[in-house]
This record gives sequence, C-alpha cells and structure tokens, in this order.
Amino acid sequence: MKLLVINGPNLHMLGKREPAVYGTQTLAEIEAELRRKFPEVDFEFFQSNHEGAIIDRLTAAKDAAGVILNAGAYTHTSLAIADAIAAIETPVVEVHLSNIFAREAIRRESLIAPVCRGSISGFGARSYELAVRYFDEEQ
Amino acid sequence: MKLLVINGPNLHMLGKREPAVYGTQTLAEIEAELRRKFPEVDFEFFQSNHEGAIIDRLTAAKDAAGVILNAGAYTHTSLAIADAIAAIETPVVEVHLSNIFAREAIRRESLIAPVCRGSISGFGARSYELAVRYFDEEQ
Amino acid sequence: MKLLVINGPNLHMLGKREPAVYGTQTLAEIEAELRRKFPEVDFEFFQSNHEGAIIDRLTAAKDAAGVILNAGAYTHTSLAIADAIAAIETPVVEVHLSNIFAREAIRRESLIAPVCRGSISGFGARSYELAVRYFDEEQ
Amino acid sequence: MKLLVINGPNLHMLGKREPAVYGTQTLAEIEAELRRKFPEVDFEFFQSNHEGAIIDRLTAAKDAAGVILNAGAYTHTSLAIADAIAAIETPVVEVHLSNIFAREAIRRESLIAPVCRGSISGFGARSYELAVRYFDEEQ
Amino acid sequence: MKLLVINGPNLHMLGKREPAVYGTQTLAEIEAELRRKFPEVDFEFFQSNHEGAIIDRLTAAKDAAGVILNAGAYTHTSLAIADAIAAIETPVVEVHLSNIFAREAIRRESLIAPVCRGSISGFGARSYELAVRYFDEEQ
Amino acid sequence: MKLLVINGPNLHMLGKREPAVYGTQTLAEIEAELRRKFPEVDFEFFQSNHEGAIIDRLTAAKDAAGVILNAGAYTHTSLAIADAIAAIETPVVEVHLSNIFAREAIRRESLIAPVCRGSISGFGARSYELAVRYFDEEQ
Amino acid sequence: MKLLVINGPNLHMLGKREPAVYGTQTLAEIEAELRRKFPEVDFEFFQSNHEGAIIDRLTAAKDAAGVILNAGAYTHTSLAIADAIAAIETPVVEVHLSNIFAREAIRRESLIAPVCRGSISGFGARSYELAVRYFDEEQ
Amino acid sequence: MKLLVINGPNLHMLGKREPAVYGTQTLAEIEAELRRKFPEVDFEFFQSNHEGAIIDRLTAAKDAAGVILNAGAYTHTSLAIADAIAAIETPVVEVHLSNIFAREAIRRESLIAPVCRGSISGFGARSYELAVRYFDEEQ
Amino acid sequence: MKLLVINGPNLHMLGKREPAVYGTQTLAEIEAELRRKFPEVDFEFFQSNHEGAIIDRLTAAKDAAGVILNAGAYTHTSLAIADAIAAIETPVVEVHLSNIFAREAIRRESLIAPVCRGSISGFGARSYELAVRYFDEEQ
Amino acid sequence: MKLLVINGPNLHMLGKREPAVYGTQTLAEIEAELRRKFPEVDFEFFQSNHEGAIIDRLTAAKDAAGVILNAGAYTHTSLAIADAIAAIETPVVEVHLSNIFAREAIRRESLIAPVCRGSISGFGARSYELAVRYFDEEQ
Amino acid sequence: MKLLVINGPNLHMLGKREPAVYGTQTLAEIEAELRRKFPEVDFEFFQSNHEGAIIDRLTAAKDAAGVILNAGAYTHTSLAIADAIAAIETPVVEVHLSNIFAREAIRRESLIAPVCRGSISGFGARSYELAVRYFDEEQ
Amino acid sequence: MKLLVINGPNLHMLGKREPAVYGTQTLAEIEAELRRKFPEVDFEFFQSNHEGAIIDRLTAAKDAAGVILNAGAYTHTSLAIADAIAAIETPVVEVHLSNIFAREAIRRESLIAPVCRGSISGFGARSYELAVRYFDEEQ
Repeated sequence: MKLLVINGPNLHMLGKREPAVYGTQTLAEIEAELRRKFPEVDFEFFQSNHEGAIIDRLTAAKDAAGVILNAGAYTHTSLAIADAIAAIETPVVEVHLSNIFAREAIRRESLIAPVCRGSISGFGARSYELAVRYFDEEQ
Repeated sequence: MKLLVINGPNLHMLGKREPAVYGTQTLAEIEAELRRKFPEVDFEFFQSNHEGAIIDRLTAAKDAAGVILNAGAYTHTSLAIADAIAAIETPVVEVHLSNIFAREAIRRESLIAPVCRGSISGFGARSYELAVRYFDEEQ
Repeated sequence: MKLLVINGPNLHMLGKREPAVYGTQTLAEIEAELRRKFPEVDFEFFQSNHEGAIIDRLTAAKDAAGVILNAGAYTHTSLAIADAIAAIETPVVEVHLSNIFAREAIRRESLIAPVCRGSISGFGARSYELAVRYFDEEQ
Repeated sequence: MKLLVINGPNLHMLGKREPAVYGTQTLAEIEAELRRKFPEVDFEFFQSNHEGAIIDRLTAAKDAAGVILNAGAYTHTSLAIADAIAAIETPVVEVHLSNIFAREAIRRESLIAPVCRGSISGFGARSYELAVRYFDEEQ
Repeated sequence: MKLLVINGPNLHMLGKREPAVYGTQTLAEIEAELRRKFPEVDFEFFQSNHEGAIIDRLTAAKDAAGVILNAGAYTHTSLAIADAIAAIETPVVEVHLSNIFAREAIRRESLIAPVCRGSISGFGARSYELAVRYFDEEQ
Repeated sequence: MKLLVINGPNLHMLGKREPAVYGTQTLAEIEAELRRKFPEVDFEFFQSNHEGAIIDRLTAAKDAAGVILNAGAYTHTSLAIADAIAAIETPVVEVHLSNIFAREAIRRESLIAPVCRGSISGFGARSYELAVRYFDEEQ
Repeated sequence: MKLLVINGPNLHMLGKREPAVYGTQTLAEIEAELRRKFPEVDFEFFQSNHEGAIIDRLTAAKDAAGVILNAGAYTHTSLAIADAIAAIETPVVEVHLSNIFAREAIRRESLIAPVCRGSISGFGARSYELAVRYFDEEQ
Repeated sequence: MKLLVINGPNLHMLGKREPAVYGTQTLAEIEAELRRKFPEVDFEFFQSNHEGAIIDRLTAAKDAAGVILNAGAYTHTSLAIADAIAAIETPVVEVHLSNIFAREAIRRESLIAPVCRGSISGFGARSYELAVRYFDEEQ
Repeated sequence: MKLLVINGPNLHMLGKREPAVYGTQTLAEIEAELRRKFPEVDFEFFQSNHEGAIIDRLTAAKDAAGVILNAGAYTHTSLAIADAIAAIETPVVEVHLSNIFAREAIRRESLIAPVCRGSISGFGARSYELAVRYFDEEQ
Repeated sequence: MKLLVINGPNLHMLGKREPAVYGTQTLAEIEAELRRKFPEVDFEFFQSNHEGAIIDRLTAAKDAAGVILNAGAYTHTSLAIADAIAAIETPVVEVHLSNIFAREAIRRESLIAPVCRGSISGFGARSYELAVRYFDEEQ
Repeated sequence: MKLLVINGPNLHMLGKREPAVYGTQTLAEIEAELRRKFPEVDFEFFQSNHEGAIIDRLTAAKDAAGVILNAGAYTHTSLAIADAIAAIETPVVEVHLSNIFAREAIRRESLIAPVCRGSISGFGARSYELAVRYFDEEQ
Repeated sequence: MKLLVINGPNLHMLGKREPAVYGTQTLAEIEAELRRKFPEVDFEFFQSNHEGAIIDRLTAAKDAAGVILNAGAYTHTSLAIADAIAAIETPVVEVHLSNIFAREAIRRESLIAPVCRGSISGFGARSYELAVRYFDEEQ
C-alpha cells in the first residue's frame, strides 16, 4: 500500500520551532519513525510552504491509496486546497499535531475538514500513526 | 488497561436511526467488536441521554487509564461536560462517527474538544478503535 | 389513536407561574380538557424537567401515532432533543402556549422546529388542541 | 363568521411551482376545500403579489372576525405588513404550507409573527384548516 | 430563616479540581463554614450535576426565605433554569466563586442573572457568605 | 412654493392605529393643519401603501421645491425608495412622528436617510411643520 | 426567439439620473439599440417600480425563451422576486449596468442571483447584449 | 423662555475645521445668529470638550425650558450623557450640522437619541433654528 | 481600615432620577447610612461625572485598603478606568444598584469587571454594604 | 487583438473533477473551442495553482488588450490577486463556470470582483465566450 | 523644531504599573531621555487622564511642527479625539509602547489611527524616538 | 549588521502602480536609498509575489540581525507567514507604506502584527528607514 504524506507550511521547522509547544522531534525523525513502525507501507513524503505546490501534488496523487495531510496554517485559509481534495478520488485524512480546538479562534475552523474522510488532532506525532492505521486496516 | 467508553444522547439508537447516515451497526455491536479486537483492554461501556449522568460518570472515572467520549449532540451545547473533563486528571479522547465538520454550522463547533487530549472524527465505528489504539500504545 | 403529549421544563408550574402571562389553568387541567374534548384519542401524558428523560421518552415512543411536544426552554437550547426527534419515525408536532416570536431574541429560535412535522404557537392551551386535530384528521 | 384569507406573493403559482416541494394542489383547490369543509364560515379570499395591496386589504379588514395570512416571502422582508397587522384590531393568524424552520436562514425569521395572534406552519394545506378551527372555536 | 443553597455541575469536585484556580477547600467544608458562621440560619444544601434536578429542586423551594444558586456551567447554557427562577416567588441570588467576567467569552454571559435578585461573583467561598448576609439582613 | 408631502404605508391609519402611541389626530387633520398654518405654501399630499407608487410619485416630483417624506416602515427596508431620492434633484427631507431611535433595532436604521437633505423625528405632527419651515426659509 | 427584458425600480430614470455614474443613454435608447443589434429576436420590454408588478410579469412569462432581468435595488431586498424566478421554468439571466461588487455593502449581496441561470454585471448597456447573446446562441 | 444650547467636543473649531465640510461660520457666529433671530428667547450657550462637564451642565439645567444638544462625537460613544438626559426632566432635542446617516458606520448610531425628545440633523446651522422653533411654539 | 467609595456619572442625581427605578434615597443618605452602619471604617467618598477625574482618584488611592466603585455608565464604555484599576494594587470591588444583567444589551457588558476583585449588583444601596463587609472581614 | 486567459487553482482538473457539477469538457477543450470560435483573437492561455504565479503573470500582462480571469477558489481568499488587478491598466473580466451565488456562503463573496471591469458567472464554458465578446466588440 | 508629546490615561503610572509588562522606566524618565537624545528639538510634554483635556490641548497645538500621541485606552474608545486630530492641520503620529495587535480584541482596533499621519507600536519607549526621527528628518 | 528586507506581493509594481496613492518611487529606488542612508548596514533585499517563497526566505533568515517585512496583501490573509515569523528567533518588524488603518475594513486587520516585534505604517518609504533605525540602535 502506498501512502502520500503531505506536510504544509512551517512543518519543516519542527524541532526547531517553539519546542515547548511542538516537541523536539524533527519532521525527518517523524517520517523515519513512520517508515520503521509500518514497514509494509510504501510512504512518499512531501513538504512545502507553497499552497500551489500542495495543490499540484494533491491533484497528481492518483497512485496513492490515501493521503495524510497536515496542511498547517493553510488548514484555516486555503479554500483552494479544499477544492483540490474534493477534485480527487483518493481519500484524504486530515491530521494535526496539536489540538487545534484548544487554540485561538482562527485555528478552530478548518476549511479542509469538510472534504476529508476524517480528522485526527492533538496526539502529536502519534496523529500521523493513527491515520496510517486507518488506511492500513481499511485495505 | 481499563478504558471507559461513554456514549451520549441518542447513540443507543444506532442501527435504528437514519441507517443511511449512521450505518446499520448497533451500539452493542460496536462494543462487542471493540472487546473482540482488543482482548487485552478492560472496557467499561456507559451510555446515557442525560447530561448530568455523563458528568456523574466522568467525575467518578478515577480508575480508568483513559476515557473515550462520543458526547453526541452535547458536544456542541454542554459547557458542563467540558468542565467535568477539565476537572478530572484521566485523559479524555473525543470521537465522532461522522465527520462533524461536514455537517451544519452548529455541529462544526465542539465545546468539549478544547479540554480533550485529542479528537478523532469521521471514521465511523473505526473512530473508537483508533482512540483505543492511542491509549493502548501510550501505555 | 394513541398520542403522546410531552411537556418540558417548568410546565408543571402552569397556573402557579406568572399567571398574568401563562394563565391560571394548570397542566393537569389542560390534560383533562384534552381527554374530555377528544374522547376517541388514547392520550399518554409525560412531563419532565430533565432533558435526558425527554429524550428517553421520545426514543421509546414507538407505539404512538404521533407526539405533541412542548419542550419549553429546551426548545431553544437542546440539540439533543432535536436529534431524538430525527432518530424516530413517529411524527412530532411542536407546540407553544405563547407566541415565541414576540418574546426575547433567544426564544425566537427553535432548534427542534426544523425536524418537526409542523409548529403551532401562540394559542394558549388551544395550541395542544390544534395539534391533536392535525393527528386526528390525518388518520 | 366571516374570515379573510390573504395569500401573498407567488402563492397563485401553487400546483405549478416546484410540485415536489409544494404539492400539486392549486390555490383555487385549497380555497374550494376550505369552503367545503367549513360551510358555516363566510370566506373571503384575496391573493396578491403586491406588498402594498396586502396592506390595503389588511387595513380594510374591519368586518372580518379574523384574518388568516400566508405572506409568502414578504413574511421575511415586510416590516410594513407587520405594521398593518399591528394597526388593526382584527386578530391575524400566520400560516405557512412548509415548515419554514427547516429552510434556509433568511426564511427562519418572520417579521410578522411577533404581531400575530399565533403561528401555524408545516402542515401543507392543512395549516389553513387548523387556523380556521382556531377562529371557529374561539367564537 | 431557612435558606436553600444549590450548587450545580462539577461543584462536588471543589478542592480536587484545578486547586490553583478554585482553591483547596471542598464543598463540604464551605457548607460547614456557612453553618458555623451563621448558626441562626437553617441551611439546606443541594448539589447536582443534573440540570433537571436543579429545576426540580428550585420549583419545590416554597418553604425557603431565599435561594443561593451557584449554577456552574449551567449559568451560561440553561434557559430552563432561568425559567424556573422566574416561575417561583422565592428570591434567588446568583453566586460565583471566580470572577466570571475575567474568563473566556462564553462564561461572561449569564442566562440566569436577569431573573435573579442580584449577583455576587469573584470572592471565592466568601461569595456565599455575602449572599447569606443579604438575606439575613433583609429579614 | 410648492411642496410635496408623501406618507408611506399605514399612515392612512393615523388616529385609528394605537392612539396611545401615535395620537388621535388623523392624517387628514395633519394635512389640514399644515395648509392652515402655511397658507403661502402650495401643498400636494400623497399617501400610499405601495413602495412602487411612492417611487413613481417621487421620480415625477419635478415641479416641487421640496419633498417631505415619511416613508413609514419602508424607511427601514426600501433601498429602491432611497435610489429614487438619489435619482431626482428635488431635495427631500425625512420626517417621523415618533423618535425612531427609541424603538426596536430594525427601526433604528434608516436606508433613506443617507440620501436625504436632513432628517427630523420625534416631534409628532410637529415634525412635518419643522420640515416645511426648513423649505420655507430656504427660499 | 422571444426574450422578455424586465427593468426594475428607477431604471426609467436612466440618462436623467446621475449621468456621471449611469451614462446619458436612456432606457428607451438601450431598448432601441438591442432591437437594432438583434433583429432576429422578438423583444418584449417591461419596466416597473413595483415589486409586485415585476412578480406578476415574471410569473406570466411562459411564452418567452428567456428573461433578462435588471431588478435594480430589488436585487438586494426582494426575496419575493427570487421566489417568482424559482417558480417559473423560463431561464432568467441577471444583469446590472454597474459592477455591483464595487459598491456599498448592501449592494454586494444579491437575493435573486442564486436562482438565476447566470449573472452579468459591470458592462453598462453592454451587459444586456451579452445576456441576449447567451440566449441567442443557446437556441 | 430660557433655552440652554450645549455644544460638545471640537465644535469650538467650527469655521476653522474642514470648512469644505462644516462651512466657514464659527460657533460664535451661529450663536449670535440665534440671538438675533429669536430675540424673545433667553439663550445660554455652553461648549465643552469634556464629557463630564457636559453631564455636569445637563444635570444642573433645571431652570431651562429646554436643552438643544449637539454632542459631537460623544453622540456615538457616551452612554453617560444619555443617562444624564434620562435623569433630568427638562426636554432635550438632539441636533447635528451634517446628516450623520450619510457618514461612516460608527456615526450612524446615536446613543443619546433614544432618550431625547426628538432629533434634527443635516440642515447645517439651520438645525439649531428648527430646534428653537420647536421649543418656541411648544410654549 | 480606610475604604474609598467612588461613584461615577449621574449618581449625584440619585433620589431625583427616575425614583421608580432607583429609589428615593439620595447618594448623601447612602453615604451617611454606610458611616452609621460601619463606624469602624474610615470612609472617603468621591463622586464625579468626569472619566478622567475617576482615573485621577483611582490612581492616587494608595492609602486605602480597598475601593468600592460604582462606575455608572462608564462601566460599559471606559477602557481607561479598567486600565487604571489594573494599574493599581489596591483591590477594587465593582457594585451596581440595579441588576445590570436585566437591562438593555449595552449594559450587560462590563469593561471594568474583568480587572476587579469581584462584582456585586442588584441589591440597591445594600450592594455597597455587602462590598464593605467583604473588605471588613478580609482584614 | 491579444487576450490573456488565466485559469486558477484546480481548473486543470476540469473534466476529471466532479463531472456531474463541472461537465466533462477539459480545460484544453475549452481553450481549443475559444480558438476555433474566435479565430481573429490571439489567445494566450495560462493555468496555475499558485497564487503568486497568477500575480506574476497578471502584472506582466502589458501587451494584452484584456485579461479573462477565472481565479477559482482564490476568488474568495486572495486579496493579493485583487491588488495585482488594481495595479495594472489592462482591463480584467472575472468569469466563473458555475453560478457562485448559488453555492455555500464563502463562495458568494468575491474579493477580486470590485476591481474587475465586469463579472460573468453561471454559463459554463460559455462564460469565457461572453467575456471574449465583450473585449471583441469593445475594440 | 517644536514637538508636542501627549500621553493619555494611566501613562503617568509608567514604572509603577505592571512593570513586567510596561518596564520600570517612568514617564518622566522617558521624557528626559527624549530631551537628551534630541537636544535640537523643543519638546512640550503633556499628560492627562481626561479625554476632554487631550482634545483641548490638541486643538490648541497650532505652534507645534508635529504631535506625538500615545492616547492609551482612549485609542480604542474616543471618536472625539479622532475628530480633534482631523480638525487640526498639525500632523499627528500615533505611538504605543506595546504591540497593541498582540493584545485582546478591543485593543486591536484604533479609532484614531485612520486620521493620523502614521502609526508606530511595539518598541517600548523607543516608539517615541522613532516618531521624533520622523518629524526631525521631515524638516 | 545584516538586515533582511522582504517585500511581498505587488510591491515590485511600486512606481508603476497607482502613483497618486503609492508615489513614483520604484522599489529599486527605495532599496538604493536605504543602502545610501545606512552604509553600515549589510542589506539583503527580497521580493516575491509567492506566499510560500516568503515563508521559505523567512525560515532561512538565521544569519540576519532582523527582518523588515512589508507583506503587502498577505498581511491580511496569510496565517502561514505569521506562523513562520513565530517559528524563527530573528525579530521581525512589520512596515507599510500607507496608513492601513485609513483603508477598507479588510486592510485594517493584520494577521502578522501580533507576532512581530513592532509595527510602523503610514510614512511612505520612510517607514522602512524607521525600521532600520530601530535595529540599528538596538545593536
């Protein structure tokens, strides 16, 4: 099973960015951990700070069984990414490291959640793992 | 590990209520499935239509390692259940069968999410399983 | 024909509560009057101040041809009662003694009206009678 | 007893307009049915698409025992019709074919309801009958 | 003089719940303190997490000279408790341990305050005492 | 000097309509009083409940030195009357019998005021007189 | 092909009304120009300042292949005209001379657009021509 | 007859302040003009930029037959001046030089209008004269 | 113990202002009553209609054990008084004669409450006494 | 005449994306159709999912007689594209395949419409043709 | 060059007020520092807690080359100070010690900013210096 | 000292874009002027219309002593740029050429200001200079 894991803006800063809030694990370490825990999954990882690049990648995602998307701040401002998710047939699961509901008002609304299969937030790097499990068992 | 699974108002109607939306599986069947899939977990199941009864049960939950809570419609109207979650030390994970973000405005806001450890929604009965996995691996 | 008449919070205070506004007739008198006027109907009366008890009763209402519901203040705050109405097949008619539209802002919005068959308000105890007539003639 | 039944904009299209929503019965058929069911009532029927004409007719309604008013879309936009209802002494009952509370936001607010005696909605053509019964028994 | 002191949801957790915020005094200790300080008052204490139970108790409060009510989170969501207060003749004084105005938006609005005699908040357990003094001197 | 005095919906009911609020003077009496007090002015009086008729009259008002307009409830809902005022060169003064600012929210906003020369409200029938004085002395 | 062109309130003032904004062309000139440019189309022109008259005309439009509607200020306030458009089967295209999106807030919302086939605004008298072209080529 | 004319903040700048908007007449000239036109009136003029000073003066206004108040920007922000008006028995008429309804949103709402006898705006210095006439003829 | 009692705008009018609402007791009488009831307290009374003067006095309040503040209408509009309270270390208790929650919307929000120690409202002149008791027993 | 046709995010998915809503025609086919129907026009087509790339292209558009812009979801979120349109002198016409007014709330507001020459929506691929006609005849 | 530096409510408390937030430097020290750093500037310093006094001073500021204004809390509530700034020709620069955008909602809106030449906030006492530099180099 | 100066969307159009509003100076000229005025500063200039490219550059800014950011329209829509600013340790100062507070509503709110050190707007190209001075003297 092939899974595409897309991380949006500023997630390349993980580990360096407000470690008290986001932990000290880097994105590379999270990705390595996923590969290690799920050897049977063929992961493709993609990170970009560009809204357009995320749309490009999403709409080219035909070969994946599923997409795990942490759209970062674009979660709350990008109707275009939401449209891209709606435009493809591959199911998309939204993940967030932190509990977005416990943050400021603008981060409590997700433009992309309505077109995702489901949403998982608040479990740190474990959020990605739970999403993988969803696709893994769905097979 | 002991887990308390609390289901709120109208979830006793699962299987009978709008099966096109909520599926044909009853709550008893979901519970049985969880017991079968996670034999190592000591589940306690509780369902009530009473906001006060859910608060009573939550604030008496000291012996559980975690609570999995599907508060149904109280998710959106009960500040008192949110206070109960904040008042206890046992971690609570919010689950929803359907993707609440794809529903009408009042159901897109969760009063209890900000005080939960994390939130999982949109995966049907699988939402409960992913929550169990979170607690299971956390041990 | 069996009809279930459910009265919500504080309606047991009718006759004692602000008689200038709600009249001097008690709930028992209204119920007796309905029995007298519609001898062909098999009425079951239920009053509770508990949101959960109203949901319990509604979702157990299978044997009734219809439900007449005056949800009192829960009309404006209980999404859970609305869900219970949507979860059952028995048709529910919403009634109110006073014209809720002529009252303060919070009482002008009904969470339960959208899932009811219809709505009758402003006719005092006569609101119940008109609801009975609806079911009576529908048979 | 004389009753004035006023129908507002587009209700002359009943039967022709979105029959899936509004049924196939024409306004003339509804009026005939009312005459047939309540032979003791002296009905006067009036339909107009003109807000001003409805106000003209309402404020000339002195001889009627009551007015049954389905103001159609003017329900939600005409403060002037509300003023006309407040300006006369004849009691007015608001009726709607469909359950306006289950429709889009702008149709959930009624400018005229606060000055009406009561409000009946959601029972199709039966809404008019229940209003007639109210006046009939009030005599 | 008999006074009924009603405490709402989660107040049974006092002392155990976020002691940094709410202090280490339990509800039982606050009640004992009131009895000790005002030996001339015949106190009846009632705590419940059930909105309906609070309404039941309020509307049965005929023999008390006054009610001191800390409705907890129901302060902000229960129109039904507000109705119960309006339905009885016994004067009710609203109290809060913390200064609700210094908390998040939803806790700055009180649905029950408009129908209470007065409101006292922010003085910790002393809020109850000031309310007792009000009734005490009113006699 | 010719002045056109336009009265909108329900103002033909003056004297008959809620006399406690609007006084017992009829519109005909107010008009007669204006004629008597300002014999040098050539008044033309026009009353209509029809928004369109008021627009027709306003846009045909070329020969008048000024228009005195009491648009009644259309003050708050008619953007089309506002457009008509903007479309003509004759200056228009808005008048109201009652102090619209002391009434409910919807009556505190005037769609037509922004395009009027000025606005006079709260002086009963005297509001019209003050408007006449404005035009009278402007000559 | 027969096309009905309906112009709403104040459009009879074109050429006379704020020529700097709306140009010096009169409505009669625009109509003549359309007849000249599209000799193959059987135009019927209708202008009214009366909301009701526009509804009357729309709901009698059965013989036309299409309706081109410039509802003027009623665009923003008339739910009843929107209902009329929804009630008929003839397709309606909304046109505006000016770019309504560049104007004040109330003019940026169109109540009738959602039920129209399409919308064309900002091209002056050319807006009507583009609408004719749409119907013309659709044949 | 004694009339108190109170001018609020920045009105001492009249003639110097944006003459294109407010004209070149100074406040002293307006006051002189009023004295000249109404020799029978005993005017007292008061101008202050201090909210408190306006309240001091208003609540000491017992000997005047009426107050003419141009509260400037305090019109829109001072609930305390509104309370002062409500606290005294002398009638107060609100005046404005410009048409406040044609200005930006915050200036379209008047906190003091609801407690004034009436309101006159948009007639420049003539607004004061019309207010004097009101009191003059009321005698 | 020294207590500073500050009364804001229009409170010097007590007894003269709407006695039906605010009672017939003057501010001087309330102050005398406090002195009589609490002979052990060294009261300093200060009343001003000037927002700035209240800030001057608050920020010079170093020698008092506490401040009792009835800010009148400034309660709802003065962020500057709130800042002054936050800037000093002396604890401030907010009092109101009437139940501000039962009044119009603008009076239901208090800008100063969030920075006060506590808030007491609705007990008439007794509100001041309860505040004194708070400070008295706190010693 | 040279025309630049810019298509924004996800429009490269046309034909593949929800064909029931957007039709089966691909963007390439629409472009070919425009070339075939308007052989006299020198078209340049540009599609990008990148907000920045659209701004780059717009601000480099000096040689075109006009721009036809379907900004997709950026229509509703990109103030920067609106600024780019305002920054250039080439006229821009906004087009949409679907009737954006009939869709969900966020799609009913266009940030770019206020700075466009005009707007055409709801005619499918025909929307582009009508825009070409506008420029074509304008020459 | 003469510069007038106006400080509004509570700024006389600098150094004493929440030093963790506002630093330990007093206003006198800031003023001395400005005099020391810019010996070529003729400073006039003015501090007041009175909105009216600030307006008095601003409208008397004719001899200054510029005004540096830290209006404190009046920034967010005083439309009258904004009017005073608009009424004078001397340019005014708004300064704030803290970053007002990072504070609570009411402090993120400035009523006076729209009429100021520019705005500088967040640099502590350095904000004043940057404003001086602006005027200094402008000469 | 090294400073990174980032300019966002459409700022490459300076001098060409609405010169009446933004002046005739190009961005290259502003940059040259900064280099000339501050020869001791090692400037790096970066302009992009791409939100993602600005984030890329910001999060790679480790070697700069400070960032001066004019985010153009992204100021009001990009939560992702705000996150990037929060993710780095280099202090960022927000600058704007025009007074954003004097513009339309959407431009009065800055998403990035809350995470910036400070904000300077309204001084044209001088805004950049004042920001440089801040960093220059901070060293």
